[in-house]
Amino acid sequence: MEIINIEHVDGSARAGTLRTSHGNILTPAFMPVGTQASVKSLDPRDLKEVGTQIVLANNYHLYLRPGVQTIEDLGGLHNFMNWHEPILTDSGGFQGYSLQHLRKITKDAIIFKSHIDGSNHVFTPEAAIKYQEKLGADIIMPLDLCVSSDSSQTEVQDAMQQTHKWLDRSIHAKKDSRQILFGIVQGGMFSDLRKQSADYVSSLNLPGYAIGGLSVGESKSKMYEIVSLTVPYLPDNAPRYLMGVGSPEDLVECVNMGIDLFDCVLPTRIARNSALFAPEGRINISTAKFKTWNRPVQEDCDCYTCENFTAAYLHHLFRTKELLAFRLASIHNLRFIMNLMQNMRESIKNHTFERYRQEFHSRFNPPNEQIRKDQKQKWLQSLKRK
Amino acid sequence: MEIINIEHVDGSARAGTLRTSHGNILTPAFMPVGTQASVKSLDPRDLKEVGTQIVLANNYHLYLRPGVQTIEDLGGLHNFMNWHEPILTDSGGFQGYSLQHLRKITKDAIIFKSHIDGSNHVFTPEAAIKYQEKLGADIIMPLDLCVSSDSSQTEVQDAMQQTHKWLDRSIHAKKDSRQILFGIVQGGMFSDLRKQSADYVSSLNLPGYAIGGLSVGESKSKMYEIVSLTVPYLPDNAPRYLMGVGSPEDLVECVNMGIDLFDCVLPTRIARNSALFAPEGRINISTAKFKTWNRPVQEDCDCYTCENFTAAYLHHLFRTKELLAFRLASIHNLRFIMNLMQNMRESIKNHTFERYRQEFHSRFNPPNEQIRKDQKQKWLQSLKRK
Repeated sequence: MEIINIEHVDGSARAGTLRTSHGNILTPAFMPVGTQASVKSLDPRDLKEVGTQIVLANNYHLYLRPGVQTIEDLGGLHNFMNWHEPILTDSGGFQGYSLQHLRKITKDAIIFKSHIDGSNHVFTPEAAIKYQEKLGADIIMPLDLCVSSDSSQTEVQDAMQQTHKWLDRSIHAKKDSRQILFGIVQGGMFSDLRKQSADYVSSLNLPGYAIGGLSVGESKSKMYEIVSLTVPYLPDNAPRYLMGVGSPEDLVECVNMGIDLFDCVLPTRIARNSALFAPEGRINISTAKFKTWNRPVQEDCDCYTCENFTAAYLHHLFRTKELLAFRLASIHNLRFIMNLMQNMRESIKNHTFERYRQEFHSRFNPPNEQIRKDQKQKWLQSLKRK
Repeated sequence: MEIINIEHVDGSARAGTLRTSHGNILTPAFMPVGTQASVKSLDPRDLKEVGTQIVLANNYHLYLRPGVQTIEDLGGLHNFMNWHEPILTDSGGFQGYSLQHLRKITKDAIIFKSHIDGSNHVFTPEAAIKYQEKLGADIIMPLDLCVSSDSSQTEVQDAMQQTHKWLDRSIHAKKDSRQILFGIVQGGMFSDLRKQSADYVSSLNLPGYAIGGLSVGESKSKMYEIVSLTVPYLPDNAPRYLMGVGSPEDLVECVNMGIDLFDCVLPTRIARNSALFAPEGRINISTAKFKTWNRPVQEDCDCYTCENFTAAYLHHLFRTKELLAFRLASIHNLRFIMNLMQNMRESIKNHTFERYRQEFHSRFNPPNEQIRKDQKQKWLQSLKRK
């Protein structure tokens, strides 16, 4: 059964409606990340107000705390978070990559050493599905193997083949018909492996497809190359989800290639580091020039933060380490991203997407790539310390 | 001119309306503390929703960051915080007590060494008024000298006399007629000095009176003793503000003695340490029993937190160190206090205050006094490290 109606196509870009048990999602759509059942510093009302349609949560983290059985006993993840809109859970596969020092991979499972108390936890493909069934998200992901961008072709091929076998096992293990299981395409930075993976995963006739194993240290141009060569092998009548991607410039480029769904910690992570999105690029609200900036961060922004506070106040909150800073900055950055998605959707409907894309790039300056990589590396390191 | 209408009296307890340039305050009233122009983790909408009528901010902290001139240039403190209801600023006198290792006191001033960069800052009574005029709060406080509860009678007497002189100078310095200047009664733990101070300050015919120098390490019974002996020396037709007091049991006792206005960091400070108010006393939401508690923290509470989340979810947020924990807990604790104030007000109007008070005490178990003192000491220490 098809879960997405593609209503408009403009070039390769698509605008559609994705149906889930907890309501519809207008695509292209961005999913804020609530790893531990909370999008950091925000409450469900904030999420609704910025225009969130679907939230991502993490199976592995919730398995550890508070436990998937606990969440099931409490009425499932939607009740637990008080978020009665769609939720997608990631399987724990990404933690096999980000927590490399705390896991062992066998043919059968990822075996994690808890970063909380050192205990061992065996994630087989079947267990990852069972845990996600207890959580009760609308869209669930199979356990996959994600490798770093500098892995050899043999390593990538092995991981890909194991991911395919695990996908078969995941499909077999899945019982709850209300949940939607996506397939994940792997294949690292190798175009022939990506093609092979996309072909295989597509052959399974799943309701939706994800592209995994990107945003793992490769350059932007490499990431774009892999996405653009993978998409044509995916069926037109199913949603396409690019995992872990979410800077404004990447969203525009990847919507242009035909991606429908995204998630990324970036907007909320950089917000907590005082980086705010503006039409011209990121601004650092902690810099001295904002001390007396008696206007909103972004004049034409309709978010709660910009409608109620000056850049000077935000500057002050960051400089004095006030907790409110994190929330106000996160609200703005997510609203910026949601407006971007909505504008892209409108321009696809109006067949003006290419113009929108060019206008966006002529105005928006992404940060230097090395800075971007360093920041991401720092974040990955911080995950390991947790 | 009288700024308060006392509309109901029940025993010594009073219910009234206090008028300021930014609106009326129904008393007895509690002021959440936003030291640095932000009640920690909360936004103005949260403050309104919990029932806040007036917020307290701190002259010394705002003088340091972002600077009182900056705030004036940005349109004053109300605009800066986007809080268009009443504000009271404390003078910086309390920081002369809490930052003892960073200040020198002369006949003329408190000289602070900034905890941020070590620079020196001279707070004369005149400067403290001038700075507060730039901030533009509705109610402002004179610079006073606050001594610890174990000071000798001579030390306390000297500080009191200096506070009186500084009050004269403050009255003389004050220019902005829209602002209300309160007098502060000092005199430490000595009843004759308290009487002397209350008599002197009352003789100045000010629009309002504060009792300072309490909640500085003394026992609860000592604090109650000093409040009860001071109040009769204050005029009936002016508001009485007890500075720095705000546990539920203290609020009930001090309203019973005739206090109209309170401020305290306690509800928001303990919230950030996972202590939540309930009708039976404080609960620690981090304890294991709440892990599966599928009901609100307080069944009959009408706050955003209790209406939307279970105790189990709050427990999870604290255990996983999610930022949302601080805000949800602060919202609940402030709503608890605001409901308490409103209930006291109603019972005063209905002449049932004494019954309300007894019912409150029969249900609410305050924490052990030693625990309370230790926690406060820890907080004071944390201020010094900042």
